[in-house]
Amino acid sequence: MQRITNLETIKKVGEKVKVSGWVNSRRDHGGIVFLDLRDRSGILQVVCSEKLAEGIKDEYVLEVEGEVEKRPIKMVNSELETGQVELKAEKIKILSKSETLPFDLRDLNVSLPTLLDYRPLTLRNKKIQAIFKIKEEAISSFRKTMKEMGFFEFESPLIVPSNAEGGAEVFHIDYYDRDAYLSQSPQLYKQILVGVFERVFTVTHVFRAEPSVTTRHLSEYISLDAEMGFIESWEELMDVCETVIKNIFSDLRKNRSKELKVFETNTPEIKGKIPRIKMREAQEIIFKRTKKDNRKEPDLEPEDEKEICLWAKEKYGSDFILVTHYPVKKRPFYTFADPEDPGYTLSFDLLFRGLEIITGGQRINEEEEVLKNIKKWKNQPKDFKFYLQAFKYGMPPEGGFAMGIERIIKQALGLGNVREASLFPRDMERIDQRLSLLQTKKKKTKSKK
Amino acid sequence: MQRITNLETIKKVGEKVKVSGWVNSRRDHGGIVFLDLRDRSGILQVVCSEKLAEGIKDEYVLEVEGEVEKRPIKMVNSELETGQVELKAEKIKILSKSETLPFDLRDLNVSLPTLLDYRPLTLRNKKIQAIFKIKEEAISSFRKTMKEMGFFEFESPLIVPSNAEGGAEVFHIDYYDRDAYLSQSPQLYKQILVGVFERVFTVTHVFRAEPSVTTRHLSEYISLDAEMGFIESWEELMDVCETVIKNIFSDLRKNRSKELKVFETNTPEIKGKIPRIKMREAQEIIFKRTKKDNRKEPDLEPEDEKEICLWAKEKYGSDFILVTHYPVKKRPFYTFADPEDPGYTLSFDLLFRGLEIITGGQRINEEEEVLKNIKKWKNQPKDFKFYLQAFKYGMPPEGGFAMGIERIIKQALGLGNVREASLFPRDMERIDQRLSLLQTKKKKTKSKK
Repeated sequence: MQRITNLETIKKVGEKVKVSGWVNSRRDHGGIVFLDLRDRSGILQVVCSEKLAEGIKDEYVLEVEGEVEKRPIKMVNSELETGQVELKAEKIKILSKSETLPFDLRDLNVSLPTLLDYRPLTLRNKKIQAIFKIKEEAISSFRKTMKEMGFFEFESPLIVPSNAEGGAEVFHIDYYDRDAYLSQSPQLYKQILVGVFERVFTVTHVFRAEPSVTTRHLSEYISLDAEMGFIESWEELMDVCETVIKNIFSDLRKNRSKELKVFETNTPEIKGKIPRIKMREAQEIIFKRTKKDNRKEPDLEPEDEKEICLWAKEKYGSDFILVTHYPVKKRPFYTFADPEDPGYTLSFDLLFRGLEIITGGQRINEEEEVLKNIKKWKNQPKDFKFYLQAFKYGMPPEGGFAMGIERIIKQALGLGNVREASLFPRDMERIDQRLSLLQTKKKKTKSKK
Repeated sequence: MQRITNLETIKKVGEKVKVSGWVNSRRDHGGIVFLDLRDRSGILQVVCSEKLAEGIKDEYVLEVEGEVEKRPIKMVNSELETGQVELKAEKIKILSKSETLPFDLRDLNVSLPTLLDYRPLTLRNKKIQAIFKIKEEAISSFRKTMKEMGFFEFESPLIVPSNAEGGAEVFHIDYYDRDAYLSQSPQLYKQILVGVFERVFTVTHVFRAEPSVTTRHLSEYISLDAEMGFIESWEELMDVCETVIKNIFSDLRKNRSKELKVFETNTPEIKGKIPRIKMREAQEIIFKRTKKDNRKEPDLEPEDEKEICLWAKEKYGSDFILVTHYPVKKRPFYTFADPEDPGYTLSFDLLFRGLEIITGGQRINEEEEVLKNIKKWKNQPKDFKFYLQAFKYGMPPEGGFAMGIERIIKQALGLGNVREASLFPRDMERIDQRLSLLQTKKKKTKSKK
C-alpha cells in the first residue's frame, strides 16, 4: 500500500490507508491508546489497543495501517486540520525508536543555549518549525518579486581574493598555498553583473567575523541582495524595497497564516509610502524626544533606531521608516555622494520596529570616481582590477540594497534573538556545538586578525 | 519620460519613447549611423545622424529618445525580436563611456584564461550570457519540482566545525581563535532536517580544495541537494532524480529556447526510464567493448564513465545512465550497505554524456549503525554529537542526492570546461584574477594540511 500524508486522510473516510510519522504524544485511556502522529503535513490522531501500542513512546517513528473514521461530533478537534477524522490502527510498524526526551518537546520552555545545543531535536517543535516555514516563504516572496521586475538571479562567489570592502570583520581562509577570505557581501559581483544583466539579485550567505555577541549579529547569515542599472533617481531603489517588503508580508498572510497564528505579534500592514527622513532630521527628533544629544554622531546608535521607530509609529502609524543621507565617511567607498548635500550620501537604511533590516543606496558608476575613492579608503587599486573592468567598459547609473532575512523574521515574529531565526546559527562561541566543548583555543601566534 | 525596454518598442510604433542600453555595434552608412542598442530584453536598431552619434563607440551606455518606426519590409531583420521596428533617434545622452575593447566582443574567440581574466566584459557576449540564463532556469526548475513534491527549502550553513565527512580536500578557516572549515556538502544538515521536515532541499555552495586542475572540477560550485524520509525503497530516490532531470530539460526547452538556439547541441529527451545497471555490470560491459580490464577497480575511472555512456547511447538511445551499487569502501560513512549484496551499497551515480552529474543513495538511519561506521571510517564520535541527535530521537528510512549544476550545464551545452558554466570560477590558480599576479606564495610553515 502507498503511504499517504496525514492531511490526505480527510478525503479517505471509510478507506484503508497507510500513514507514517513521529509520535508527537501518547495518551492512554482505559485500555485505548491515542497517538498523535506528526508528519510534514500535520498531526493525525491514531487510535489503537494497548497491545498494538506496546512500548511506543514520544518521537518513535511509525508506519500505521488502518481505516479512516469520522469522529463523533463531540470528539471533533477544531485545532487540527485532520480534526474531523481519526485512524483506527490495525497494524503498527516501528521504523525507528527514540530515547527519552531531555525536555517536553511539545511545550518547549528552554534557554537559548539549550535550544541550540539540541537544535536537531528542538526544530521538531511546532512553533520553532513555524519560524522556518515563514522564513522559507519570505525568501520565496523576495525571489518572486525580483523575477517579476525582470531581475536575473545569480549565485555570488563566497571565496574572495582580498579583504576588499574594508572592515576588519573578515574570516581568513588557507587557500591552497595562498590567502583568501570569506565574502562579507556580494556587492562587487552585483555591480559587475549590472554591466551584464542590468538587474540582478541573489539569495546569498555572508560572513562577518563579529567580535562580540549581540542579539542582532550572526557570523554567517542570509542576505537578500539586489542591484539595478538605469535608475533615474536613487529614490527608485527605496520604491523597490517598499514593494519587496509589502509583498513579503502579503505573501506571508496568504501562504503562512497557520504558522503566523502561533505567534502573538501581527504582521505589519504597509499603507501608502514608508516615511523617509534624513539621518540628521532623525537625530533632531530623537534629541527633542529624549533630551539625549547624539546629533554630532556620524551614525544612528541602536537606541536611536529604536527611538525613531517609536516616533514613526506614533506619528504615521508605521512599523517602518526609511532613514537617508548617511555621512560619506560612514558608508563604503562605492557609495554615491549627494551632489546637493556635501558630505552626505544617496544612501538609506530601512528600520523595522527598532532594527535596521535593509541598507542600500546609489553607487558610483564612473571609473575615475571609483578609483579615487578606492585610494581614499586606503585600499589597493590592484585588488580592484577585476571589479574596475565593469566601469572601464560602460556602466549605467545604478544602485541596490541588501536585506538581512533573519532580522526581518526576528522583528516580524517578536523573537528575542536573531539566532532563533537561523537554523544553525554560527557565532564566536558556537558552530552547532559550543566550541569550548569541542576544541582548545589556538595558540596566540597561530591566530590571525 | 519613463524608460521602456527595447522589446517593448514593438508595441509603440508611431510613438515617442525613451530607451537605454549599451552600444552593441555601430555601422556608418553614407551620413546615417546605425547603432545596435543592447539592454536586458535584447537588441534594438537605433538610426541617427552622424552629428547625434558623434564619438559614440562600442559599449558606450546611452539613453535615447525618439520615435519608433516600422521598418520597410526588405529591411526587416528576422533574427531580432525587434526586427520589425527601429528607433529614429532625436536625442542621445551618453550615460557612460567605454575604453576601446581588447577583442571583438560580438564574435568572441579567446582562450579560456582570457575569457576569465576579462570576465566582467566577456559576460556581455550573447552566447556567454545565454549559458547563465540557461543555468538560472535549470536551478529554478529544480526548485519548482522539489516544491511540487512537498520538499522544504533551507539554507545549509557553510562554516562547519570539523572536517567531518572525510577526504583531505577541505579549506581551513581561522575562526576567531579557533578552527573551522568550509562545507564540502550539506549532507549532515540535510539528514538532520529529514528528522524535522521529512523532505528537504537546498541550492548551496560547496567547497573542494581540489589539488589539481581538470576540466570538471571547481574549488567552489553550486550543488542542488535533496533528501527525503519515509522511502520504502532506495529506488524511489532514482525516480525523483529522473523527474528532476526531465523537468529541467522540458523547462529549458519551454523557457530558454532562444538561448538554447545559440548552441549547437540538442537538449536530451528522456523517454521512459533511464537505464540502471550495477557498477560491476558496467565494468564487464566496458571490458568486453575495450578489452581494457578495469574490473578489479573499486570505482569507475573517467574514461569508464565515457565508455558506459557510449554504450547506453548505442543500446538504449539514452544520454543518461544510472550506475548503482558502488563498493562500501568508496562511499562515505553514512551510506546504506545492500543487505543482499555484501560489500556494496544502495547508492548510485547518474552519468550524462560521459560525466557524473548526480550522486545519491540511501543513508543509514539507525544511531548504532551510524556510530559504528563513524569509528570504522576513523572519525571522532565527539565531532558527530550534534548530527547523532537526529538519530537518537527517531529517524525514518531515508536517502537523497546531490547534483553539480555546472556539470549539467557543461554537458548539456557541450562546453569544453566546467569553468565556463561558473560566473566567477575559483580554482587553485584563480580567484577572479590569477593568484600568481596578485599574491606571493605563503611561507611553507604557514600553510596547513
